[in-house]
Amino acid sequence: MRPNTAKKRLKAGQPAIGSMFTAGSPLIAEIMANIGFDWLAVDLEHSENSLANLQGMLQAICTTSTIPLVRIPCQDVVFIKRALDLGAYGIIVPQVETAEQAEAVVKAASYPPRGFRSWGAPRGLLYGGSDYFHGAGNEILIAAMIETRRGVKNVREIMSVDGIDTCWIGPNDLSVSLGHSPEVRELEPDVEEAIETIKLGALAAGKAAGIQLYTSEDANRRIAQGFRFIGLSTDVRYVGEGARANLSSVTRER
Amino acid sequence: MRPNTAKKRLKAGQPAIGSMFTAGSPLIAEIMANIGFDWLAVDLEHSENSLANLQGMLQAICTTSTIPLVRIPCQDVVFIKRALDLGAYGIIVPQVETAEQAEAVVKAASYPPRGFRSWGAPRGLLYGGSDYFHGAGNEILIAAMIETRRGVKNVREIMSVDGIDTCWIGPNDLSVSLGHSPEVRELEPDVEEAIETIKLGALAAGKAAGIQLYTSEDANRRIAQGFRFIGLSTDVRYVGEGARANLSSVTRER
Amino acid sequence: MRPNTAKKRLKAGQPAIGSMFTAGSPLIAEIMANIGFDWLAVDLEHSENSLANLQGMLQAICTTSTIPLVRIPCQDVVFIKRALDLGAYGIIVPQVETAEQAEAVVKAASYPPRGFRSWGAPRGLLYGGSDYFHGAGNEILIAAMIETRRGVKNVREIMSVDGIDTCWIGPNDLSVSLGHSPEVRELEPDVEEAIETIKLGALAAGKAAGIQLYTSEDANRRIAQGFRFIGLSTDVRYVGEGARANLSSVTRER
Amino acid sequence: MRPNTAKKRLKAGQPAIGSMFTAGSPLIAEIMANIGFDWLAVDLEHSENSLANLQGMLQAICTTSTIPLVRIPCQDVVFIKRALDLGAYGIIVPQVETAEQAEAVVKAASYPPRGFRSWGAPRGLLYGGSDYFHGAGNEILIAAMIETRRGVKNVREIMSVDGIDTCWIGPNDLSVSLGHSPEVRELEPDVEEAIETIKLGALAAGKAAGIQLYTSEDANRRIAQGFRFIGLSTDVRYVGEGARANLSSVTRER
Amino acid sequence: MRPNTAKKRLKAGQPAIGSMFTAGSPLIAEIMANIGFDWLAVDLEHSENSLANLQGMLQAICTTSTIPLVRIPCQDVVFIKRALDLGAYGIIVPQVETAEQAEAVVKAASYPPRGFRSWGAPRGLLYGGSDYFHGAGNEILIAAMIETRRGVKNVREIMSVDGIDTCWIGPNDLSVSLGHSPEVRELEPDVEEAIETIKLGALAAGKAAGIQLYTSEDANRRIAQGFRFIGLSTDVRYVGEGARANLSSVTRER
Amino acid sequence: MRPNTAKKRLKAGQPAIGSMFTAGSPLIAEIMANIGFDWLAVDLEHSENSLANLQGMLQAICTTSTIPLVRIPCQDVVFIKRALDLGAYGIIVPQVETAEQAEAVVKAASYPPRGFRSWGAPRGLLYGGSDYFHGAGNEILIAAMIETRRGVKNVREIMSVDGIDTCWIGPNDLSVSLGHSPEVRELEPDVEEAIETIKLGALAAGKAAGIQLYTSEDANRRIAQGFRFIGLSTDVRYVGEGARANLSSVTRER
Repeated sequence: MRPNTAKKRLKAGQPAIGSMFTAGSPLIAEIMANIGFDWLAVDLEHSENSLANLQGMLQAICTTSTIPLVRIPCQDVVFIKRALDLGAYGIIVPQVETAEQAEAVVKAASYPPRGFRSWGAPRGLLYGGSDYFHGAGNEILIAAMIETRRGVKNVREIMSVDGIDTCWIGPNDLSVSLGHSPEVRELEPDVEEAIETIKLGALAAGKAAGIQLYTSEDANRRIAQGFRFIGLSTDVRYVGEGARANLSSVTRER
Repeated sequence: MRPNTAKKRLKAGQPAIGSMFTAGSPLIAEIMANIGFDWLAVDLEHSENSLANLQGMLQAICTTSTIPLVRIPCQDVVFIKRALDLGAYGIIVPQVETAEQAEAVVKAASYPPRGFRSWGAPRGLLYGGSDYFHGAGNEILIAAMIETRRGVKNVREIMSVDGIDTCWIGPNDLSVSLGHSPEVRELEPDVEEAIETIKLGALAAGKAAGIQLYTSEDANRRIAQGFRFIGLSTDVRYVGEGARANLSSVTRER
Repeated sequence: MRPNTAKKRLKAGQPAIGSMFTAGSPLIAEIMANIGFDWLAVDLEHSENSLANLQGMLQAICTTSTIPLVRIPCQDVVFIKRALDLGAYGIIVPQVETAEQAEAVVKAASYPPRGFRSWGAPRGLLYGGSDYFHGAGNEILIAAMIETRRGVKNVREIMSVDGIDTCWIGPNDLSVSLGHSPEVRELEPDVEEAIETIKLGALAAGKAAGIQLYTSEDANRRIAQGFRFIGLSTDVRYVGEGARANLSSVTRER
Repeated sequence: MRPNTAKKRLKAGQPAIGSMFTAGSPLIAEIMANIGFDWLAVDLEHSENSLANLQGMLQAICTTSTIPLVRIPCQDVVFIKRALDLGAYGIIVPQVETAEQAEAVVKAASYPPRGFRSWGAPRGLLYGGSDYFHGAGNEILIAAMIETRRGVKNVREIMSVDGIDTCWIGPNDLSVSLGHSPEVRELEPDVEEAIETIKLGALAAGKAAGIQLYTSEDANRRIAQGFRFIGLSTDVRYVGEGARANLSSVTRER
Repeated sequence: MRPNTAKKRLKAGQPAIGSMFTAGSPLIAEIMANIGFDWLAVDLEHSENSLANLQGMLQAICTTSTIPLVRIPCQDVVFIKRALDLGAYGIIVPQVETAEQAEAVVKAASYPPRGFRSWGAPRGLLYGGSDYFHGAGNEILIAAMIETRRGVKNVREIMSVDGIDTCWIGPNDLSVSLGHSPEVRELEPDVEEAIETIKLGALAAGKAAGIQLYTSEDANRRIAQGFRFIGLSTDVRYVGEGARANLSSVTRER
Repeated sequence: MRPNTAKKRLKAGQPAIGSMFTAGSPLIAEIMANIGFDWLAVDLEHSENSLANLQGMLQAICTTSTIPLVRIPCQDVVFIKRALDLGAYGIIVPQVETAEQAEAVVKAASYPPRGFRSWGAPRGLLYGGSDYFHGAGNEILIAAMIETRRGVKNVREIMSVDGIDTCWIGPNDLSVSLGHSPEVRELEPDVEEAIETIKLGALAAGKAAGIQLYTSEDANRRIAQGFRFIGLSTDVRYVGEGARANLSSVTRER
């Protein structure tokens, strides 16, 4: 069974740095997979991707040693099953608010007797190896997004669920859930407090803490705070920010 | 007929700044079209795009006022016809080496009596307007890439062809054609000399001079030199450079 | 924030006329968007469309000022979230039968504190504008399909739910639910009675009443009756009826 | 209404032999549809197919007289509705464990008054005929997969549900549910016992018994045991086994 | 070998009525194929179709007995080969201007010894039958578009080429070539004269005469004049005209 | 620069065994790439593949160490450029009949000064490595199909062209060119003779000889005769033959 090197890093207490694909370009997927991220996630929640192009995005990542993940759009079993069958080596699960939800996700992602995942993983076997049935449980990474007031309240119970490997904080949704605006430069104090609560909840359960952020400064700061599962911006932010900065520095009128 | 504002700027001696899509993401196309470029070109030559997704890319650009162009992969009439029928408001033509080639391109892009373009432009009419048949000749932009030793030699004749609006220099292919490597930080003296020759050839014919480059510094320098049709990097370079810079600034090992 | 002109018309008591895409052709989408409909809906319920081509269909509509809507296939949060994130400026929701269902739909379509919609709307921001987070609640249109016996019974409670802007009657499903056949030329009296009940329910709640129909005669009759959110046939009916009428008038045998 | 010849065979006690598409190639779909299978199912559960390419796969099958089915990925109404609207003449439903689930599936697949399927079946009418509304209930085939311990326990109740036409055993998932490994050459005794229990449950309810298998030997053995709804391997197994066998017989080193 | 019923009709002096797909919707293709046209052509010249979706469009048509044709975008051998390999039972060839061009097209479409078509027709065999190699020459239909001044001049030589089955006049391009505008309601006298010349040229060579038109009135008139290969509007015109007529009859302001 | 292991084997006199994708399934591509072929070619000549899905097929192969090739549909520079830019590590060129054609192909596939290939190979660099510009000439494999009477006549000159690495015989087209039928079980004596002539022509030029065949018996026989570049059937033949054999062994009537 192919080892999940991103999960291994988390277990060893090391940062696992990744990014996310909002766009559906397999060429960009392969370009970013060649840069050296530990993991890259195809976003199925807020993106132009869908189940129709997911396999192609995963194959693009799998031309390299970067670990392919999928952010599923909800906790529905169909998305968990398809993402894993198509070779994702882990899932990022949005809006986990209770331990029951976390447990249901783990069950959907696990073969019996731990769960009820159905057999038939065409790319799972190709990518993971012929011992996929017995090894998948160890290698697949499950990240629970804690991004609502209710999720923060239940974070310890959620993170204690066996099979949940890390949390992943979405600061925008967390801000919104706490009554603020998204996309702010500096998070509100109660949001920072909630982030700290989530981190402590994960650590208390012996799990890695994770968070989505956008700059290397934030990444280094969060790593220093103890975060390890780090999402470093997205493909479309890189292109949007790069193009905007470049164009705005050109003197156009003559 | 919708005015081609990018072509208008060139005619007025103003810079028309654009960029190019190597990736086939309509989301990225729309994001970049909202940034303020004068034009954006879907690349069919060195990219993951094809005739199959071209319409979608053009529609994405056309949700804004940015002018949609297409770099065709060769001078074949099929690509000229399809790009324009699908609503491109101009074409960038690779490896133009003789006036005969330039004339053939203009003929393929022009309705009789100037040329032999066939009638039937579903998106041409939607985007350009109901007077497309009579107005297309004035609005459509044709940029001839001068990127080989032979093209440099014939630049004045090429640029004198009626219907060729601007040249567009590809410094990588030009370097290669002159015996150097592509993708160098600083162009060789003979490449710079050829670039100057091309520019003078365009200006002598009363046409705009254009060039592909990557940084705003280069853009400002080339504009100061008299270049006006400016290609400012590509979508995949923005994402690749942005992600690489970001990741390399994160301290990963702890 | 871009104003939702179709919603504005409804609020002003004016008819908002639209149609629906059963086919997945972005070219047809753009052709119909240039005809002057107030809104056009991409059908994800009974069509060849899916989440995979939805963005392209919406971008085609968004090359014009016609307001883009989506008929989602069920009330599941995934479809509500994706349709809006991809830039739909409203959703048509099938088989709404209770106020609880209507409330759940509005919550899924609204950011906190009204609802629990998750942040991250790549095309929402491009189409709506940078103040999308604060403005979306006002501009997004939600139409509840009342098309079953149970829905008719609960129509007043459904239409009273804050955030439901209009009803939309599906006469075929309503006929079937009341024990009749679909696709009849003249609706049964009890179906007409139910339609009147629904209309009155909407008006009583201060909301617009809407209905799907096929001919301009029916449209004018329903508008005279007080209906305002008018669905005028579908793309595939136009092509099927046009081709059938044309071919049947040709004398083929000689 | 076009007769469902596969369902007819089952009703007449004859074997109905089919296979399944894990790959999303419409060319392979048409090739296999020309071989003489009674039915062919597009797999949406463990495959590279999705709602985006489903119509194309069904159209490929429908160039022949082979009956097109769809294995849906879960019991959700969206997949039942879309598969049938797009012209599937039956569905294979995974992990049916209770009569309540079976009843819900039949309701979702049936027009009122039997169920609550919504009207609007673009390819249903093209393929089935203009009397689709009244005839669909008779022709559409529903196969319940019994593949878990709980399903085995409830098999008689499940198979007694009016509208369930046959069971279909997934030996891999059944083995896994009973604590064994999937993909074994010889099934464990308790799995064989469960298979016998399921078969008897179907026969007791006057329904056909079905099973997925891989070799013609197994097919003949199961038919002799009384099974009639026979799934004979899959497209990707044919290609994988054929290529492997061929390559391994070539002497490569010289 | 499956008989080409459209070609048969032409040989018998009967009208063969068809239409054309500018849109790339396989659902619309199947809807129109169920209406009763003798043939339907997928347009690769002025459309949103490409080699990428051609097979799907042809399969949609091939669910019925309507004969599938392709209008290729130019006379290049690649398009002739691919269209036929994918199961087209004939090609419509644009801008044929000389007998040499016509001969080259026939050679590219014919197996040796008549031509040099390469073997390997995956859908050709599925659709045509196992004797495709020997039968294709008889069944495949080749229509030469005569739509330029030069084509008119050479029409007799073109139509005398063995293997050219019919001409097909494009009145828009013909008008344009003769110095007029396209899309006029009434053709100019010299255009009508050229149409008569082309028809006589075809008849003199013992071949059918054909023409593209839009209304049943024109169809009946042209059939009365002796035309037999009749193109009756296009999918997107049907939808555009139907929607425009419908909407314009609705009283929108109240 | 990544070594082309298939080319290396040919240079070392070892057989390089591959197969071809007529279907466009990236899942099947990855399954076959995991079986152990030295190379696999995406067919763009007689297949359902096109430039639109080519990158995805190549990425699927590139998840393994199997070398990705493309059979281009003709000798046009566009297909050579696009196949290589998208990461193909070689091309199979149909119907090479003269040394001039072979030379033109090599030029189109080679950067200056050897040829005139244009710079810009997004996947070329990702797959080949950062020294792609200087290394591509050594690693890219060019196989000339000799499959016509004229090609046989000129085989020595063709194979002597610098840059042509191997021939590849298409027995079906060769049979057809010599006046016989394709798809015969046993080749005609003059076809066998032509095959021997081609092989000797390749060997005389110090190049490998290659051939397409279908069974391991034929493969072993041809290898014993001295052939080294061996194409072992295709994906769709594997699935067609496997399914047909399996189904025909089942006793269906009871």
